[in-house]
Amino acid sequence: MHIYIQRNNGISITRQIVLAVIDQILSGFLQEGEKLPSVRVLSKQLNVSLLTVVKAYRELEQQNFLYSVQGSGTFVRKKNNDIETACIEEPLTQDWQLSVPDYLPRSQLAQFHHVPQKIHLASSMVDPELLPNRHLKTAFEHLIQEDGTFLSRYGHTQGDQQLRLAMQQYLSGLGVYTQIENLLVTNGSQQGIDLIARTFVGPGDVVILEAPTYPGAIDIFRNRGVTILTVPLDQEGMRLDILQQLFDKHHPKLIYTIPNFHNPTGVLMSHKRRRKLLEMAQNTQTLIIEDDPWGEIYYDQHPPAPIKSMDEYGHVIYLKGLSKILAPGCRIGVLSASGSIFKRVLAAKANADLGTPLVTQKILLPFLEPSIVESHMQNLRTTLKIRRDLALEILSERCPKEVSWMVPQGGLNLWLSLPEWVQSHLVLAEANKKGISFLPGSSCFSVEHENHHIRLSFSFVSQELLREGITTLCEILAGIILSRKNSHSSPYF
Amino acid sequence: MHIYIQRNNGISITRQIVLAVIDQILSGFLQEGEKLPSVRVLSKQLNVSLLTVVKAYRELEQQNFLYSVQGSGTFVRKKNNDIETACIEEPLTQDWQLSVPDYLPRSQLAQFHHVPQKIHLASSMVDPELLPNRHLKTAFEHLIQEDGTFLSRYGHTQGDQQLRLAMQQYLSGLGVYTQIENLLVTNGSQQGIDLIARTFVGPGDVVILEAPTYPGAIDIFRNRGVTILTVPLDQEGMRLDILQQLFDKHHPKLIYTIPNFHNPTGVLMSHKRRRKLLEMAQNTQTLIIEDDPWGEIYYDQHPPAPIKSMDEYGHVIYLKGLSKILAPGCRIGVLSASGSIFKRVLAAKANADLGTPLVTQKILLPFLEPSIVESHMQNLRTTLKIRRDLALEILSERCPKEVSWMVPQGGLNLWLSLPEWVQSHLVLAEANKKGISFLPGSSCFSVEHENHHIRLSFSFVSQELLREGITTLCEILAGIILSRKNSHSSPYF
Repeated sequence: MHIYIQRNNGISITRQIVLAVIDQILSGFLQEGEKLPSVRVLSKQLNVSLLTVVKAYRELEQQNFLYSVQGSGTFVRKKNNDIETACIEEPLTQDWQLSVPDYLPRSQLAQFHHVPQKIHLASSMVDPELLPNRHLKTAFEHLIQEDGTFLSRYGHTQGDQQLRLAMQQYLSGLGVYTQIENLLVTNGSQQGIDLIARTFVGPGDVVILEAPTYPGAIDIFRNRGVTILTVPLDQEGMRLDILQQLFDKHHPKLIYTIPNFHNPTGVLMSHKRRRKLLEMAQNTQTLIIEDDPWGEIYYDQHPPAPIKSMDEYGHVIYLKGLSKILAPGCRIGVLSASGSIFKRVLAAKANADLGTPLVTQKILLPFLEPSIVESHMQNLRTTLKIRRDLALEILSERCPKEVSWMVPQGGLNLWLSLPEWVQSHLVLAEANKKGISFLPGSSCFSVEHENHHIRLSFSFVSQELLREGITTLCEILAGIILSRKNSHSSPYF
Repeated sequence: MHIYIQRNNGISITRQIVLAVIDQILSGFLQEGEKLPSVRVLSKQLNVSLLTVVKAYRELEQQNFLYSVQGSGTFVRKKNNDIETACIEEPLTQDWQLSVPDYLPRSQLAQFHHVPQKIHLASSMVDPELLPNRHLKTAFEHLIQEDGTFLSRYGHTQGDQQLRLAMQQYLSGLGVYTQIENLLVTNGSQQGIDLIARTFVGPGDVVILEAPTYPGAIDIFRNRGVTILTVPLDQEGMRLDILQQLFDKHHPKLIYTIPNFHNPTGVLMSHKRRRKLLEMAQNTQTLIIEDDPWGEIYYDQHPPAPIKSMDEYGHVIYLKGLSKILAPGCRIGVLSASGSIFKRVLAAKANADLGTPLVTQKILLPFLEPSIVESHMQNLRTTLKIRRDLALEILSERCPKEVSWMVPQGGLNLWLSLPEWVQSHLVLAEANKKGISFLPGSSCFSVEHENHHIRLSFSFVSQELLREGITTLCEILAGIILSRKNSHSSPYF
């Protein structure tokens, strides 16, 4: 167990330990029944007083996250809130491993991605039925018959040249004009964020995230040991007035933003804010990561041009994911940056894995023909808009009035805000019983958790299942809200 | 430019700066003509005195790695040793980027992997002609016709279950008995090492490497900011007497070793040493990374069972790479560990890229049928043994007597030791002129560089080109050694 203690960020050390342990429990990193390090061991590891750890553990017990057994130790409480006797799954012979500290305070995504639920509303993924499977198959069969030697060759660390050429053209259609020398093929956008983080930030550096934001990015920056500061969003995207206040007090090194149909809220950043954000970064020599996983999936009008399109001096590192909207099985993304910033990220890629597999790049290549890919995006927009509208319709009809949401103009997600006393991970436990999954909002917050939000992805399941899932979820929420009205012994608050 | 200064490792700070800059130049990270940070900027970044940086730069000028231009700054010298005027490739508008410090002190592999030379002896890769290209193609065509849905699905973060089942069976044939729950599919072994490093070690931790060792591992650990201590090898592998001395003084957290046909030297670790190394790790609660990229490629007898086969308490993390010997285009490796060590590495994988692409895993799967894969390995052993013997034959006939080497009992490499006054990267420049590449030995050392070794990979090029390449290389070496006898103005010393 690793907890980065920051002694100058205004949050007490006890509170930092509490938040970190909650984080590890909610993210599934500490599992039900698992034993925590003893007070003595943790206080030594973190170089804090015994009393600090005692207070933190006591608070966690009061919040029902932990329980202690006299003479045995402190354990993670089961989600059903029953007190359990200690259960340790690991063989005792491997107990010594617990004394090996690590650098991994958080890993939200390991657990939510593959929960085998009938109605999967948890991951921002596109229904496989809507993806160009058949086309990719046929094109790949041709390719492999013509020349299958790419199976036995390593690709270039930077990525296949033909794919970079195709991506150069594709990105120009989005307003990002770049050279193939400034493109790096990555194993999805997740790796792109990770490469940038490992190259440029570490303990002592300040990184700005939107709150809420993509959990995978939080994991990455938390694991780099940086100081994370957050900026909330309004209808136009990141609140730049609050960002300015942070700039006045701190020297951020990096800003991570998702301007197009922000994950998880769906907010679209306005053109004016994009320009202003870039100016602020230029004035302070701050790097911007512009993550754009689904800017193509707009339901009304085309989003404003990417921040990268205005980037004259190399402040913006632009990430375009292709996995979600084209071929998840290939997990391909592309990163565009310039100058020494690019060169250093490329070197980090060599360290990380020496290069993205050539095969996945070659499979994607034929599909990037402009007419083909544009027609696919057009179809996706049409079909997903129908699903979004269906989801909104059911919510309007069935959802308790205490729950609110915004209509997303694009992307794959709906962001529901529940009454503050409802804990979304307890709602999730109920939903799981009915075969439904979603992403609890706490995953999307990096510092103080707001635990009363839900991210629903309407893009993965069929219309039929979507209807069933959201209807059931509305019933669950209604039941919870009703139970509060009837009783004060509900486990939800 | 990032340099980790360690104040208690017995090497002066000036020397550490000198070594780090040489490292960055030899690894291509600082390029010819590139400008270095000013003395003032670097001294501030590293928190060392101006004089320390001045002394380091002066020593680097004396060693012909740098030159300075009055009023302009200090630059990397071109390899042909001519004094050049400053040339900066980056547009001036991106100059501000140089003031962004990074966490990347070294990246050797970015440059040597893709040098387009006619006779490529640089990378430990297998000739594509010897790989099961046709078989993989056919099997994949069947697979895609039966069920191509894996193109549109993300795989599990841990790796495809069917592939893990096949790998479980495959590893048991090597003496490693494991459960599929303890297997993680990675993007090659490089990612396996990286995941372990990012999870368990950081600044202040001590990591033990063999000297020399695989350059990719050095890059990874250097970039984690750890203190690297090295242990030389003899005919039986890592010198455990020296390791014991290190244990007596330090508390290493991790040992990285390549017991089978060590990269780059080809040394095979004896069974006795494997057992003893494991005991030492158990006594000190140290983790062992056992990297096994080509244990199947033995030329005389089967190597001893992996250290992992004796691992009772979860000290060993075993890495089996499949890229090199099966399908480089797929870049697949597998990692076996247990207990919380495994769980934490799995979480790091989720952070890094959420999982290896499903496509590459599915392509490899049909080939792991035991009879098929064993027959392939048998063929590789036969064919590569012929190439090894050919390489040894030419060396015996043509190589100057001042050069020595050991006969590798397996693997893909030959390790030549030149007279100490010969700098291998200058030999490389000569070889490149004749269309030949190899890996300069300095890449394989992590602390003090030994620059008079050469790693030749005999497995990638045809017999004909192998003959031509080694013959020419012997001529170049003979010429250099002769020039030393004739003159003292040679650039090689």
